[in-house]
Amino acid sequence: MPENDFMALALLQAEEAGQRGEVPVGAVLATADGKVLARAGNRTVAGRDPTAHAEMLALREGAAVLGAARLEGCDLYVTLEPCAMCAAAISLARIRRLYFGAFDPKGGAVDHGPRLFGQPTCHHRPEVYGGIRAPEAERILKGFFRERR
Amino acid sequence: MPENDFMALALLQAEEAGQRGEVPVGAVLATADGKVLARAGNRTVAGRDPTAHAEMLALREGAAVLGAARLEGCDLYVTLEPCAMCAAAISLARIRRLYFGAFDPKGGAVDHGPRLFGQPTCHHRPEVYGGIRAPEAERILKGFFRERR
Repeated sequence: MPENDFMALALLQAEEAGQRGEVPVGAVLATADGKVLARAGNRTVAGRDPTAHAEMLALREGAAVLGAARLEGCDLYVTLEPCAMCAAAISLARIRRLYFGAFDPKGGAVDHGPRLFGQPTCHHRPEVYGGIRAPEAERILKGFFRERR
Repeated sequence: MPENDFMALALLQAEEAGQRGEVPVGAVLATADGKVLARAGNRTVAGRDPTAHAEMLALREGAAVLGAARLEGCDLYVTLEPCAMCAAAISLARIRRLYFGAFDPKGGAVDHGPRLFGQPTCHHRPEVYGGIRAPEAERILKGFFRERR
């Protein structure tokens, strides 16, 4: 499946999260040979779980499916630049490539803030591709927050 | 319950984790009025989950018990300086005070590496007390890695 299609699936997860009243971020985990291993949207409200960001749920589900704590060779697609928690989890899970949509200057930790993958103590750095279908991810996020104001 | 007793419970969780073959780190989450809300040891191997650090499990269990994604007023006791994933989750969960045991220059993200709570984009900083019963936490960790060499 081409990269754009994985991000399209992640965008769908983001929209569905927004419809549930969650901050609309979605993630898809794909195997090295291009199969969808897990998909998730934010569930911090419904799950009553501060750690239930879309990326975390996709990583956990993927690890459960593979029966391994490391997801070597797998790629993660997420509609928003990951925060520090998720970026660190992506490193711990040994994700091969990270594709993300919108940049997040306030909460992002990949290209902003602590820039975790650039830290000397970061033991595994995925390849990173930011800004993939960013206008769509931004539209979903802006629409969600506009409605709530 | 005094601080030392919470850390004693966290050290017990660390020892039990080591007996299960997990890196021996333990955590205890306590309410503002001094009750144990959750306790956990590392479960990344058994849980096949790269995110199953003791802190994450204690935060998630505590949030489930309280039925809320934010743990305002709660304190977390952990036997090792949290990594970036766990430190960011502690901030997201709005933990009031973080007490940790051994310092971790290689993987810690509180007093080492990205020093997450000092980042300008960190929206909530707990009070931090490091080095609590550190010799015991270090003894457990060193014993575990010595046996595995």
